[in-house]
Amino acid sequence: MTKGDETRRAILDHACRLASRVGLEGLSIGRLARDLELSKSGLFAHFQSKEVLQVQVLEAGAVRFVKKVVKPGLAAPRGEPRMRALFTGWLRWAKSNSMPGGCLFVAAAAELDDRPGPVRDRLVALQKDWLEVLANVARSGKAEKHFRADLDAEQFAHDLYSVMLGYHHASRLLKDPRAEARANAGFESLLSGARRRRQIA
Amino acid sequence: MTKGDETRRAILDHACRLASRVGLEGLSIGRLARDLELSKSGLFAHFQSKEVLQVQVLEAGAVRFVKKVVKPGLAAPRGEPRMRALFTGWLRWAKSNSMPGGCLFVAAAAELDDRPGPVRDRLVALQKDWLEVLANVARSGKAEKHFRADLDAEQFAHDLYSVMLGYHHASRLLKDPRAEARANAGFESLLSGARRRRQIA
Repeated sequence: MTKGDETRRAILDHACRLASRVGLEGLSIGRLARDLELSKSGLFAHFQSKEVLQVQVLEAGAVRFVKKVVKPGLAAPRGEPRMRALFTGWLRWAKSNSMPGGCLFVAAAAELDDRPGPVRDRLVALQKDWLEVLANVARSGKAEKHFRADLDAEQFAHDLYSVMLGYHHASRLLKDPRAEARANAGFESLLSGARRRRQIA
Repeated sequence: MTKGDETRRAILDHACRLASRVGLEGLSIGRLARDLELSKSGLFAHFQSKEVLQVQVLEAGAVRFVKKVVKPGLAAPRGEPRMRALFTGWLRWAKSNSMPGGCLFVAAAAELDDRPGPVRDRLVALQKDWLEVLANVARSGKAEKHFRADLDAEQFAHDLYSVMLGYHHASRLLKDPRAEARANAGFESLLSGARRRRQIA
């Protein structure tokens, strides 16, 4: 890694942490320059514009998310154990000190939903990738016969993401001490529904 | 209603719609003055500060939410029908033209979670009130024997709120045409889990 790469990486690390608290809109090249004691012109040389910076922060966050959550999760055996590993990895990620404001992507989702443009487009693509990972693991659970054959894998992925959003809301906004227990209970209910044969009315 | 009350109401109506799109931080007295062709000094006379304006917008949103969602919902028979009425009312609210950016409170939740102060405090109180309404209706479902006796009413309320957050994410950010179908399926799974006797392992 060159000195330039190192600096760039340090800037993006700091920017990811900051964005998890203040949102992507709260990032500014001026603020990063102050926080990191770098010149604004040096930062502009790295990122050209706020929009480029925001996209780069999402990319850096995604690289970190794959390393911390997706890869270790996919290393678990297919089906239910893999789903469980992804879920616990995601909870760890959302609680970790490296994300002082909770999951960067959850924070960005609410912020960007009404702001068309390349930053939003990149976020949507990343969120769809994550939902697709979850749906694929749900499918592997059907193949392994952990889950019932008629499970709607995309619905499962959506429901699991909802559990994660609920966790974020309860822990970050409401400061509910039971947030994690609630998320775990929600996850176990989903698994139990995925295992159960559909009742014939 | 005096002329002053009417003006105040028109301002808050507009501000609620705007905040559902741009967030409470995106509200500014200058922008409202431009949009509504009022003087900034006149707006300051009504709201004194941005923070007062933000709290008033939450209050106005809450009054509207009670009128549109809570009251009609609570008019339905106790237990499951009442839960269903609240859920469909909430979906209608989140889709309505009067909230062009989706539910004001969901948008505010992600925005304010790391911003301590009176605006956040008011939002937290309002969100807890809503969760308490949902938990109470879950309890009425147990009393009516629609739901199993060992249902955790607060967990149910949390899980239902998660379904709503998932709907917001899928419809607003991902523009998923199946967002509403997914939310309905999530809701039916929750109801089905609430009805079912817990299996003895």
